[in-house]
Amino acid sequence: MGRAARRAAAELATTDSEERNAALQASAKAIREAASDVIEANKLDMAAAESHGLSSALLDRLMLDAERIEAMASGLESIAALRDPVGRILDEWERPNGLRIQRVSVPLGVIGIIYESRPNVTADAAALCVKAGNAVILRGGSESFHSSQAIYACLREGLAEAGVDADAVQMVPTTDRAAVGYLLSSMAEWVDVVVPRGGKNLIKRVQDEARVPVIGHLEGICHVYLHQDADIDMGRRIVLNAKMRRTGICGAAETVLIDRAAAERMVPEVVSALQDAGCEVRGDNKVASLVKDVKDATEADWSTEYLAAIVSMRVVDDIDQAIAHIREYGSGHTESIVTDSAQAAEQFFREVDSAIVLQNASTQFADGGEFGMGAEIGIATGRIHARGPVGADQLTSYKYVVRGSGQVRP
Amino acid sequence: MGRAARRAAAELATTDSEERNAALQASAKAIREAASDVIEANKLDMAAAESHGLSSALLDRLMLDAERIEAMASGLESIAALRDPVGRILDEWERPNGLRIQRVSVPLGVIGIIYESRPNVTADAAALCVKAGNAVILRGGSESFHSSQAIYACLREGLAEAGVDADAVQMVPTTDRAAVGYLLSSMAEWVDVVVPRGGKNLIKRVQDEARVPVIGHLEGICHVYLHQDADIDMGRRIVLNAKMRRTGICGAAETVLIDRAAAERMVPEVVSALQDAGCEVRGDNKVASLVKDVKDATEADWSTEYLAAIVSMRVVDDIDQAIAHIREYGSGHTESIVTDSAQAAEQFFREVDSAIVLQNASTQFADGGEFGMGAEIGIATGRIHARGPVGADQLTSYKYVVRGSGQVRP
Repeated sequence: MGRAARRAAAELATTDSEERNAALQASAKAIREAASDVIEANKLDMAAAESHGLSSALLDRLMLDAERIEAMASGLESIAALRDPVGRILDEWERPNGLRIQRVSVPLGVIGIIYESRPNVTADAAALCVKAGNAVILRGGSESFHSSQAIYACLREGLAEAGVDADAVQMVPTTDRAAVGYLLSSMAEWVDVVVPRGGKNLIKRVQDEARVPVIGHLEGICHVYLHQDADIDMGRRIVLNAKMRRTGICGAAETVLIDRAAAERMVPEVVSALQDAGCEVRGDNKVASLVKDVKDATEADWSTEYLAAIVSMRVVDDIDQAIAHIREYGSGHTESIVTDSAQAAEQFFREVDSAIVLQNASTQFADGGEFGMGAEIGIATGRIHARGPVGADQLTSYKYVVRGSGQVRP
Repeated sequence: MGRAARRAAAELATTDSEERNAALQASAKAIREAASDVIEANKLDMAAAESHGLSSALLDRLMLDAERIEAMASGLESIAALRDPVGRILDEWERPNGLRIQRVSVPLGVIGIIYESRPNVTADAAALCVKAGNAVILRGGSESFHSSQAIYACLREGLAEAGVDADAVQMVPTTDRAAVGYLLSSMAEWVDVVVPRGGKNLIKRVQDEARVPVIGHLEGICHVYLHQDADIDMGRRIVLNAKMRRTGICGAAETVLIDRAAAERMVPEVVSALQDAGCEVRGDNKVASLVKDVKDATEADWSTEYLAAIVSMRVVDDIDQAIAHIREYGSGHTESIVTDSAQAAEQFFREVDSAIVLQNASTQFADGGEFGMGAEIGIATGRIHARGPVGADQLTSYKYVVRGSGQVRP
């Protein structure tokens, strides 16, 4: 499998973007045509999941219907429509000796994707890899095995139809957990990078066992900080959206920080908006002194990714304390400051060391699609290679192309 | 040490480029002022190295005199003069909802550098890290221990004088080999990336043991390919320079490929030029049939990094075979095509998957200084994060800065 991927990657690297886009479009078409097969396969997964007693949230993630299949197909088409991430001139300059140097983006090579439950990741992740000229080895979760296999068949059909080596997309044909270990260690020779997408345990395991580079993220403990110069209406709307739009995604806010100077004005309004929306609020002493019905936040709350309708809230002395809190408890994912002060925003941008820092916008924009990347494989919180949303551009490497006229080095 | 580095990195990330440059300039001054101390320390290393019977090549690498110390100091000044690698806007765009997104370069964090013999790496590597706002933990070779310690003292003096946390540069205070293992594994929490600089064994060990990301290179099996449309004078000069200017560096050519259509014209001229310069030539059958005094190249020759005055030479049918040869035997480092054909050069650039591909220039330009990066820590042949010369720009990560006006996600 690794050898075939390496060969397909070499072949794919010589294709042009029209060929790769044609493959993605043909895959989209194949998915549409096979919609009923995919839904049949998904029914097998759903039945098994129900008999295993999966939660309704997980069942919802797993479920595919005509609408979701159409979304998957059009997702492939929108990835096909993205600008070519390969062959971009990232930088160019000329040396005093006349050498003209260009830094040009090239495919990464062979990418391993290890993911859980959502079967649409099969299509999204494979498409982003192929878009950037990479071969991919997919390893989906056991819950979505049949659905993923059915989608996978469509992808290979699309590749073959467009004349692209179908081995550019391969899937580990077993749900045996040992296969993940094998992919992470013994295949180091064949796999250039592994991208885990899923829950905490999966990503932890991948980071612990991998002998190949990993682009992953551990947690999203995201903060919204209401600065004293915040517009209170805007602050309320942003907190509500950042926490409650979807509570289960990594860009959901877990902690709200509010400036002491504005606490009396802001805390009651924000807390009641959250409570009205069904959110449990856990506050520090100051919060508790201003409103009723908040539980006491413990030290553990500040470093908890609830992924649920629960939020912790702290009153801070000033922006320095807010930044210090985020540096101590944050996970380096996404933080937002709400303020009308450009100076406060600049300090926040400079001193908060997270992959994404926002001013006056919801943390739930932490998403490759929302960033205009077409789709994403995940949000990286590491510092090496890629940080933030991992889209097609992030699945490239680069080479230097140097044009001379006979230069030798003195 | 890791904790201090992490703290210093956080502090350094808030410095501006003037402060970091002042620290580098102060370090240069401290090195100049301490020149005699550094030379005294170097004498201890040289005496130990001689008693251990090190080769004259290694002794030369180790030796420091007034001229080399001045080169080290002015090297720091030229790194200080480079443009700021941090805070650069790498990309920016606006979304239909009005969010303005910037991708901005930021320091990587804490960098571990593991290196051998050359004591000047202590200054170069530390300076590149500090330039990019990173803290660094240095682990030099035992041969250069005293020299490196003396240089290290100057660096910390310079940092302190400029008001920068001196723990931004730290050095492992032992030559115990176990310390390397500790740095590679147990310090994963404190070190963001490790850069090995040295011989094959060192880099292999680092890649095998590291639990942190590694930016390294294994070998430089570099090729010069004389295409049938090459200017023969230029070809001869480039081959000679690529092989013989310095035979011990990773950008030195190890194999020359020559088109069959031009073999009778080129092989004798190139071989005699190499032999006149004292280079042993190992050729395939065709080469042997055209010139005298060439040894037969064996299969092993094509994948050998001689790092010596030896070259292997093969006659290829055409550019496709040349590219196939490089793909099979090359190490992904640096390859040069000599040709007047723009079309051949473009094919070579596209299909040769190496960090650096050149047309009509010597492979010995594979060097951060020659690329205009001021200095380099090494040449990366991996595909993740950095590829090719690793200078200050490559020692950065990035973050996304997003400015909104109250946007919430639908």
